[in-house]
Amino acid sequence: MSTQTEPANLMEAIVSLAKRRGFVFQSSEIYGGLNGFFDYGPMGVELKKNLRDCWWNDMVRRRDDIVGIETSIIMHPKVWEASGHVAGFSDPLVDCKVSKTRYRADQLFWAKVEFGTNTTSAPDAVAAHLNANDNVLGYVSALEDENITATLQSAAEGMKRKKHVQGILLPVQPRDFTEATADEVTQIPSPATGNPDLTPPRAFNMMFQTNVGAMTDASSVAYLRPETAQGMFVDFKNVVDTGRVKLPFGIAQTGKSFRNEITPRNFIFRSREFEQMEMEFFIHEDDDWAKWHRYWINWCKDWLLSIGLPASHISEYDHLKEKLAFYSKGTTDIMFKFPFGVQELWGIAARGNYDLTQHANASGKSQEIFDEATKKKFVPHVIEPAVGLDRIFLAVLASCYAEEQVTDEKGNTETRTVLRLSPRIAPVKVAVLPLLKNKEQLVARAQALYTKLKRKYPCFYDDSGAVGRRYRRQDEIGTPWCVTIDFDTIEKEGDTFTLRERDSMTQKRITETELFALLEEQVY
Amino acid sequence: MSTQTEPANLMEAIVSLAKRRGFVFQSSEIYGGLNGFFDYGPMGVELKKNLRDCWWNDMVRRRDDIVGIETSIIMHPKVWEASGHVAGFSDPLVDCKVSKTRYRADQLFWAKVEFGTNTTSAPDAVAAHLNANDNVLGYVSALEDENITATLQSAAEGMKRKKHVQGILLPVQPRDFTEATADEVTQIPSPATGNPDLTPPRAFNMMFQTNVGAMTDASSVAYLRPETAQGMFVDFKNVVDTGRVKLPFGIAQTGKSFRNEITPRNFIFRSREFEQMEMEFFIHEDDDWAKWHRYWINWCKDWLLSIGLPASHISEYDHLKEKLAFYSKGTTDIMFKFPFGVQELWGIAARGNYDLTQHANASGKSQEIFDEATKKKFVPHVIEPAVGLDRIFLAVLASCYAEEQVTDEKGNTETRTVLRLSPRIAPVKVAVLPLLKNKEQLVARAQALYTKLKRKYPCFYDDSGAVGRRYRRQDEIGTPWCVTIDFDTIEKEGDTFTLRERDSMTQKRITETELFALLEEQVY
Repeated sequence: MSTQTEPANLMEAIVSLAKRRGFVFQSSEIYGGLNGFFDYGPMGVELKKNLRDCWWNDMVRRRDDIVGIETSIIMHPKVWEASGHVAGFSDPLVDCKVSKTRYRADQLFWAKVEFGTNTTSAPDAVAAHLNANDNVLGYVSALEDENITATLQSAAEGMKRKKHVQGILLPVQPRDFTEATADEVTQIPSPATGNPDLTPPRAFNMMFQTNVGAMTDASSVAYLRPETAQGMFVDFKNVVDTGRVKLPFGIAQTGKSFRNEITPRNFIFRSREFEQMEMEFFIHEDDDWAKWHRYWINWCKDWLLSIGLPASHISEYDHLKEKLAFYSKGTTDIMFKFPFGVQELWGIAARGNYDLTQHANASGKSQEIFDEATKKKFVPHVIEPAVGLDRIFLAVLASCYAEEQVTDEKGNTETRTVLRLSPRIAPVKVAVLPLLKNKEQLVARAQALYTKLKRKYPCFYDDSGAVGRRYRRQDEIGTPWCVTIDFDTIEKEGDTFTLRERDSMTQKRITETELFALLEEQVY
Repeated sequence: MSTQTEPANLMEAIVSLAKRRGFVFQSSEIYGGLNGFFDYGPMGVELKKNLRDCWWNDMVRRRDDIVGIETSIIMHPKVWEASGHVAGFSDPLVDCKVSKTRYRADQLFWAKVEFGTNTTSAPDAVAAHLNANDNVLGYVSALEDENITATLQSAAEGMKRKKHVQGILLPVQPRDFTEATADEVTQIPSPATGNPDLTPPRAFNMMFQTNVGAMTDASSVAYLRPETAQGMFVDFKNVVDTGRVKLPFGIAQTGKSFRNEITPRNFIFRSREFEQMEMEFFIHEDDDWAKWHRYWINWCKDWLLSIGLPASHISEYDHLKEKLAFYSKGTTDIMFKFPFGVQELWGIAARGNYDLTQHANASGKSQEIFDEATKKKFVPHVIEPAVGLDRIFLAVLASCYAEEQVTDEKGNTETRTVLRLSPRIAPVKVAVLPLLKNKEQLVARAQALYTKLKRKYPCFYDDSGAVGRRYRRQDEIGTPWCVTIDFDTIEKEGDTFTLRERDSMTQKRITETELFALLEEQVY
């Protein structure tokens, strides 16, 4: 019997489990860590690899219309000029001149603290604090959070109390720092000091820069790619010439990308080094882009369900037409309910033929395809589903994590932590447990089974401690099944084991053949 | 019937096939490429993934004593101070002041052009060209090649002819540029200009440098890792604390590394961005390191055979004791016969406890393990097998590539190009070929088989052109088996297909069940 309980702080619980059971470590932890960089431990690397492989198998190997590639992280710098990243891939940055803290201007919110103009009669005490021309008492600021309006309103009330002013404040109107006028910039307080120490926002390019070759000058500048997508565009012609593809078709790749985020945050959600899984699906210029856009939104949602994410956490967000780049036909994000709020997980963008055209112009190499039917040449259009592997990893941890009050047959209650990972992605598929480690026959049968399983499936052999404790250890790392080799196995007919299922905790007898059939069906 | 013929230039043949069939492209080719960077195309990415997965399965998942991790490419800069890379990871660099060409000093060879001192009587014409104090006519230089002595001797003879000098030259004594005295540096000609325009060698650090965060100053300097190995050392304690490991045990990882090579060369053999597969095997300080060293040398050689490399191309090279670093107990390289010579493929180094000790000192965090038996704490020693995935990829292409004269049943002779890839690593495992594409029954049976195969194995459906031509296309990309659905399949009992084997080109009838059993056995 079990009752599910929500941990007080889900994010804290996940980060703690991730560290404790070897899923995610802070990078370079013995040196104090490096902000925005993470390592994957023995369990994490397997979970990540399984997610990557599931995506690759479903996206590339099991389809006839998509091929994979793997392009270099450092590409020719002209790639990033043509793509627009050198000129435009920047975040607005604000410095606090006193504390040296840096903020992303669009994450730094502020508001005027203002009295209503039609207050019947502002007491003298108020008037003394107000500017000559308005009813503004001052400015408050705060970093973006779940409910920034409430945060700023509360800061405004605090200012009112601190200044011993009477009267009724207007509701605050939060704006971000990019919306501040030059005059307002000089008055908005820095969250670090409480004083107006902030610089005006400036554009900060998020590409990491390096130098290739022995020179360190402008001619040798290169960038770590901020996305894998440009690799598909730059190699488009090479794939068309060698890959036996015809429209519509896709080119997919997984790999590391790098963004020098001003404020990396939310664990592995927004880090500076991360892994992407991107696909560019090329279609005829006359094809119905909206149809394909919808097709890929649905495909991505179905895929998320196939790896075990709950439908209840998934939603869609259509980018506003007026906020899209001029070439964009439409972008829809698949959103996910993370512990820190609903955030973007997978973006599906209809980008027209912008990228290929940019590279054709910049390189002087035609990116056109010849259409047999119409005898015309044209540059294909593209639909791009782009997702971060680390984000999916986090979505999996967050939604599969559970704490349960369980009561055993003796009536004892304890809390079990369980990761309800789909068998497709679980780091360990089966744990093989001999009931006792000092019974030769049990051990021999368990070892034989383990050896046979291990050729095909990641599994774990555990003979230490009570079986109940061994189950708990597997529950925490999300192992779907435990197989116990017990006295019935060696003494009774049929050579059966006890199969214990993680989520229901039910047990039943199973033969080796049935076990392999179960794995064959569930692990793909 | 077939006869194997060696291509005139194997390296050229491989590079051409790699481009033509989508294995390897030059990075950013439409922008003129970027020296030392490569992309993997649709076939290449599959071959590379298969090699990586075979290594991972055999090294990590199928063993009980090794766990995997994945650490970030950008680590805390102190990691590289502690490891010695900031101070010492450099190559000697020489500049040609006129041409601006750069050379690795240890790859730039030179020799004195010298007459014997006991020449009976040097003619006046000789004397005019000789220095006052010796019989030196001048200096010649050349970049390292297969037979540098012959190259330099020939250059010396050329100088003699050019200067119209009589007499017999001494055999040249090639030395590299790091061995030149200050005086010689001013006389040795640059290979680019033929004049003595070279600078003295200077140390050039091969780590790519970047800046993390919004500052671009010394405090924000970071490096792209030049090896994955340090990740295992830096995360050692985290793995010990969470991974349920006990000595001896290993930590493995695969991933990109970066080295700013002065002269990248030999295709993907020495590039600036490459992928490593490294494992650190930790042993007790009192354990017999030589035994484990030998164990891992043998393991690595066996593994190379298991993916289909020929034993005839593999040899061992023991590094000379006097050339080892002070902490090193021994290093053995597994060498491979590449088209450009016998070169290092896999290094197996016994590194003592140097790395963990360095990090313990630099971080102030103990890296000791407690030994239950002796109740003592100590820092484990390590054996490190380190291999480049791109090098294995090249070794595979080079040794599996063959051109054969084949004679068909009609007596026609043609050349077939075949990649004799092991089924374990072939990008496509089976090609499914309906004999005719306009016979509904053939197509239906072929599609049914293809759909069933594709869930488990990368395979390819091809219905265009004569079956013989379809076989050839598969031969070139190394597909081990073709299955033809023909009239016997649909008209005779037993539902059998024609199975055509790539290397022998033999054909036999096979059932679906037998085909799956064959794949299950050969693809793992």
